[in-house]
Amino acid sequence: MALLDDNRLFDAEPRARSVARALYEGIRNLPLVSPHGHTEPRWYAENACFPDPARLLIVPDHYIFRMLFSQGVRLEQLGVPTADGSPVEADGRAIWRLFARHYHLFRGTPTRMWLDHTFSSLFGIDERLTADNADRLYDHIAALLEHDDYRPRALFERFNLEVISTTDAATDDLGWHRMIRDSGWRGRVVPAYRPDAVVDPDFAGFAANLDRLGALTGEDTGHWSGYLEAHRKRRAYFRSFGATSSDHGHPTAETANLLPKEAGMLFDKVRSGHADARDKALFRAQMLTEMARMSIEDGLVMQIHPGSWRNHSPTMLARFGRDKGFDIPTRTDYVGALKPMLDAVGTEPELTIILFTLDESVYARELAPLAGVYPALKLGPPWWFHDSPEGMRRFREMATETAGFYNTVGFNDDTRAFPSIPARHDVARRVDCAFLARLVSEHRLDEDEAHEVAHELAYGLAKRAYKL
Amino acid sequence: MALLDDNRLFDAEPRARSVARALYEGIRNLPLVSPHGHTEPRWYAENACFPDPARLLIVPDHYIFRMLFSQGVRLEQLGVPTADGSPVEADGRAIWRLFARHYHLFRGTPTRMWLDHTFSSLFGIDERLTADNADRLYDHIAALLEHDDYRPRALFERFNLEVISTTDAATDDLGWHRMIRDSGWRGRVVPAYRPDAVVDPDFAGFAANLDRLGALTGEDTGHWSGYLEAHRKRRAYFRSFGATSSDHGHPTAETANLLPKEAGMLFDKVRSGHADARDKALFRAQMLTEMARMSIEDGLVMQIHPGSWRNHSPTMLARFGRDKGFDIPTRTDYVGALKPMLDAVGTEPELTIILFTLDESVYARELAPLAGVYPALKLGPPWWFHDSPEGMRRFREMATETAGFYNTVGFNDDTRAFPSIPARHDVARRVDCAFLARLVSEHRLDEDEAHEVAHELAYGLAKRAYKL
Amino acid sequence: MALLDDNRLFDAEPRARSVARALYEGIRNLPLVSPHGHTEPRWYAENACFPDPARLLIVPDHYIFRMLFSQGVRLEQLGVPTADGSPVEADGRAIWRLFARHYHLFRGTPTRMWLDHTFSSLFGIDERLTADNADRLYDHIAALLEHDDYRPRALFERFNLEVISTTDAATDDLGWHRMIRDSGWRGRVVPAYRPDAVVDPDFAGFAANLDRLGALTGEDTGHWSGYLEAHRKRRAYFRSFGATSSDHGHPTAETANLLPKEAGMLFDKVRSGHADARDKALFRAQMLTEMARMSIEDGLVMQIHPGSWRNHSPTMLARFGRDKGFDIPTRTDYVGALKPMLDAVGTEPELTIILFTLDESVYARELAPLAGVYPALKLGPPWWFHDSPEGMRRFREMATETAGFYNTVGFNDDTRAFPSIPARHDVARRVDCAFLARLVSEHRLDEDEAHEVAHELAYGLAKRAYKL
Repeated sequence: MALLDDNRLFDAEPRARSVARALYEGIRNLPLVSPHGHTEPRWYAENACFPDPARLLIVPDHYIFRMLFSQGVRLEQLGVPTADGSPVEADGRAIWRLFARHYHLFRGTPTRMWLDHTFSSLFGIDERLTADNADRLYDHIAALLEHDDYRPRALFERFNLEVISTTDAATDDLGWHRMIRDSGWRGRVVPAYRPDAVVDPDFAGFAANLDRLGALTGEDTGHWSGYLEAHRKRRAYFRSFGATSSDHGHPTAETANLLPKEAGMLFDKVRSGHADARDKALFRAQMLTEMARMSIEDGLVMQIHPGSWRNHSPTMLARFGRDKGFDIPTRTDYVGALKPMLDAVGTEPELTIILFTLDESVYARELAPLAGVYPALKLGPPWWFHDSPEGMRRFREMATETAGFYNTVGFNDDTRAFPSIPARHDVARRVDCAFLARLVSEHRLDEDEAHEVAHELAYGLAKRAYKL
Repeated sequence: MALLDDNRLFDAEPRARSVARALYEGIRNLPLVSPHGHTEPRWYAENACFPDPARLLIVPDHYIFRMLFSQGVRLEQLGVPTADGSPVEADGRAIWRLFARHYHLFRGTPTRMWLDHTFSSLFGIDERLTADNADRLYDHIAALLEHDDYRPRALFERFNLEVISTTDAATDDLGWHRMIRDSGWRGRVVPAYRPDAVVDPDFAGFAANLDRLGALTGEDTGHWSGYLEAHRKRRAYFRSFGATSSDHGHPTAETANLLPKEAGMLFDKVRSGHADARDKALFRAQMLTEMARMSIEDGLVMQIHPGSWRNHSPTMLARFGRDKGFDIPTRTDYVGALKPMLDAVGTEPELTIILFTLDESVYARELAPLAGVYPALKLGPPWWFHDSPEGMRRFREMATETAGFYNTVGFNDDTRAFPSIPARHDVARRVDCAFLARLVSEHRLDEDEAHEVAHELAYGLAKRAYKL
Repeated sequence: MALLDDNRLFDAEPRARSVARALYEGIRNLPLVSPHGHTEPRWYAENACFPDPARLLIVPDHYIFRMLFSQGVRLEQLGVPTADGSPVEADGRAIWRLFARHYHLFRGTPTRMWLDHTFSSLFGIDERLTADNADRLYDHIAALLEHDDYRPRALFERFNLEVISTTDAATDDLGWHRMIRDSGWRGRVVPAYRPDAVVDPDFAGFAANLDRLGALTGEDTGHWSGYLEAHRKRRAYFRSFGATSSDHGHPTAETANLLPKEAGMLFDKVRSGHADARDKALFRAQMLTEMARMSIEDGLVMQIHPGSWRNHSPTMLARFGRDKGFDIPTRTDYVGALKPMLDAVGTEPELTIILFTLDESVYARELAPLAGVYPALKLGPPWWFHDSPEGMRRFREMATETAGFYNTVGFNDDTRAFPSIPARHDVARRVDCAFLARLVSEHRLDEDEAHEVAHELAYGLAKRAYKL
């Protein structure tokens, strides 16, 4: 049995499957547009070989180590670095073996599909990872990683990536992006403006971050107007490196639209460090509307990613730092939360705000009805825990009837795991084709239209929505 | 390829499809019972020709113009009238062309299915609307609309409507209904008692509405007892025109059961215009219980439609008025909200309260468990954005196992778009047959039982629940 | 047509069905592990014949009488005992006839599947219950119930029950369990520690319950430390009868982790009867964390069942008492609510806390992400209203991709209806096999792996998670 079946993720019913297959054949080789992700620009800049298989595939992937941790494996055993630098497992092969012994935990998860796709497509492996073959597969992958055609730029080209966006702090000097640009390499890697650290008063080092923002721009970030101007300058700087979007990760979707004077006073409070929790939330809320206004000015597409309770476990945060699998979705309100911003800018047809959610109960109830009427709003693809076959299917089933396909923006891979990018796009393309095939086989959509829509979902919508 | 396939909306799997088809053949020609809708009684009274295709099919349909607006088309271009009468597009053909150019936006939406059904069944069109054939189809439809057999009464009969209920303000004189009755036409058109404008203190002109209610009934609507008595008289008046139901559109499902003295004091506050937001909400809550008590007295079936944030965009409300596609569903609580009313009247077997929701997360969690035990409660069909194939499927999947089929009330079309009525019932009948066919093909229900249930869902339940 | 089809609950598509069938054949005869239920230990102790068919199958089953009540049948007519002992229908045959006339109400519900399974498998009936055959089937079942091989112990063995857990109040003397143990019968029946009546200050007779707890243990339950020690002693007592778990039914999932001194002061307030609603909620919250700590000490697996609004109708509570079908699910938060307990004990790999929910919207959003990372957490199967084919399918579809299969704990039947136990396990096994078959037929899981997982879901996971 092959590791990847050509009909994977298509409905078992033969007629629906054959339609899905035909749709997929029409789009499987389209270039990948990756408008939102977390790969490191340094990789493309330095173009160094990736380290061993464990450090490439396991250590940086929170989907993997959170599952193993949930079953009693300690993160130290998996080589996840500690915050204080106390030692963890350093032997890639030992990590790999431990992982292989637990590979059955991923049955039924997207991680399993992504990994098998990577093993098969990238490394030419055609057997399932087990404790028995762990060493052999490790050696096989390790050997390939030393080849030039497994370096980041080669992979970028092999993956048929037309463009990839990284995510970069507002105060980032974009040095790696400069290095890429100056290198003469033709791969298109653009930054995205991610200002959370200078927008969220709860972010570690907020005051220092604002000082740095001021220093970088020559603006007085001790005052509201200078602070806003500093954002404008940084956004322009990012655009000069090809950025087409900003990205905003907030605890909630709350927005506000204060009078300029009120906003200025709120800024003073936040800047002084005397703000309480409500002030801080209100400041974040106000900044979403400010960023939307700047988007109207400069054309950056705005992405809002709300609803994650970050670093839920304080002991794990203390020992391993941020982003270690302990971010948990929460119930998220949009209808009331977005209203101040929508009242201000929601009917602007030139503005694009892409909404994401971790709360699927809002797809049909809130997000599709909002995006189905406000010209400024579009729906991002299923995010994070929902970036999965079932999650994608639920998104299409719950959002399409009210928002249609054309108020969505195609797929983004949202990943730190570079080798999994083709796998993730492939899953999305297959699930979308399966969904379209169901519509066709139930005579809810004509097949010629389904081909057009499949092309849009795989390629066109992302390109246009993100202006890439 | 025909515009409508005979097997549309049935499962692709041949055995399930053939069961669905057999079930559907048994009910496809049953008369339509339309217990809740928003067609104009004037149409049936005057029986005038409908105007041009755009004014029949596009301008009044918020599903259509909200989708086009979301993609940058202005409502003025679609002929949607402005509140201040400032001019909008008046050329039906221009509106139609603009619509045709954007017809692809409706792919995967119920609007597309309803329109294709209307084009095919009503106008004999068998090609998909495109920019290229827009003019030809426009002319074709326009010509038909001038025929007598496309007048409202002829369509009513062609649609096989056994009875249709309109929705009428409590202070409506039912003049059009009188004209229908006096005309001798045998079509059965009945009103429904919709008292929102005299129950909701936030409704525009609330005080004047109460004055008018007093004038109509000869009751003193300056006092609680007279106000209640005025409701009783209007309900009796509506019943004299065949009304069998009342309908209540509230922001939430909150109910209250105050002591009469408290209720009277609350009324005085509301009547005086000095009520705050909490008072107003409490008054609406109290009135649901009062209406339920009157339903026990006079037998009107009570419909509760909560959970829509009306007129979400103030700029659009100011320019175009109410009901222009900017009503957005919100999270809605029922278990706590309905308790005061249920404590008062919930176990009355003679009372029928039909609950609707825009929040699908309550189907399995709250509504089915409530309707599955309280004799006074029944579940209305999927409403508004959820009146769609996927929405109907989710409703059956989430509500049936706990509430059964017999605590639901069949389908209602809820529409302003008269020509779409057969399409909407047809979609509901097909989706229900497909759901039943799945139960049969998975051996969860016998086929003879499925035929009985299909008949009930298409016809019997609505007739009995609404006493039509 | 047979009452039970061999392929019931399997997908209609032939390939998927054949995989499901193969998976099911591999596990259908596995012993039943029943780690959570509400059968009476007295049955196994006394081993008396069950009374008539109505008293066995209808009177104690709230799924049945709530549905009939919702359609206008009075509970008195069904023989449901009143709180004050006022007379109700006493003729089992009359109850049975009334039930049979309403059997159509259960179309599409799991109750129908459970009953047909019981009729067919246990009583050899192969025709659908109707008003016409009601008397004949009644006589048939009544005759069988007099046979020795229909006594509780014989049924236990016939059902292939490897072990069953009852649910027992903390102050129960476990006399029936002692009688079972002393009888020499080899059937394994164990208790579970259910301390709600001595943990929830809102429970009827709370103060007296604590007095009794003190008397039973010789501890001073007038003070916090004595109260905790009394719990420890009772848990040890339960363990001496084979208990492996505790069970906690709370209105919400709120937890707390107060300092010992604060907890002691809160206990004093609660013990004195002067606590307000917030104090009481906080005490329940604190006790979940205390119980979790004791579980680390003594190894009892902890089950948390939150989110039911008990006895929603006060009139029904007054007339018929608790547990009469008027418990309604409510929206339930876990991410914030569990945090204090998780901060204290969530990363303990030796602790097992099994979470249940009545709010399906949290499966993908909260529960799977939490159980997919915290080693102490596992997900219980779909509960109560969601213990149904559609409910189980939604659980697998929404929880698997993030939590995997191995952070779930298999099935439990949760039932008072002893004869339905095999039916309920059979439904769960079939639905799980159908789900796995879909993964296999969509090439998301290999068939050999699906066989392993099916075995785990049917047997292994429950045995290990509950330490049975």
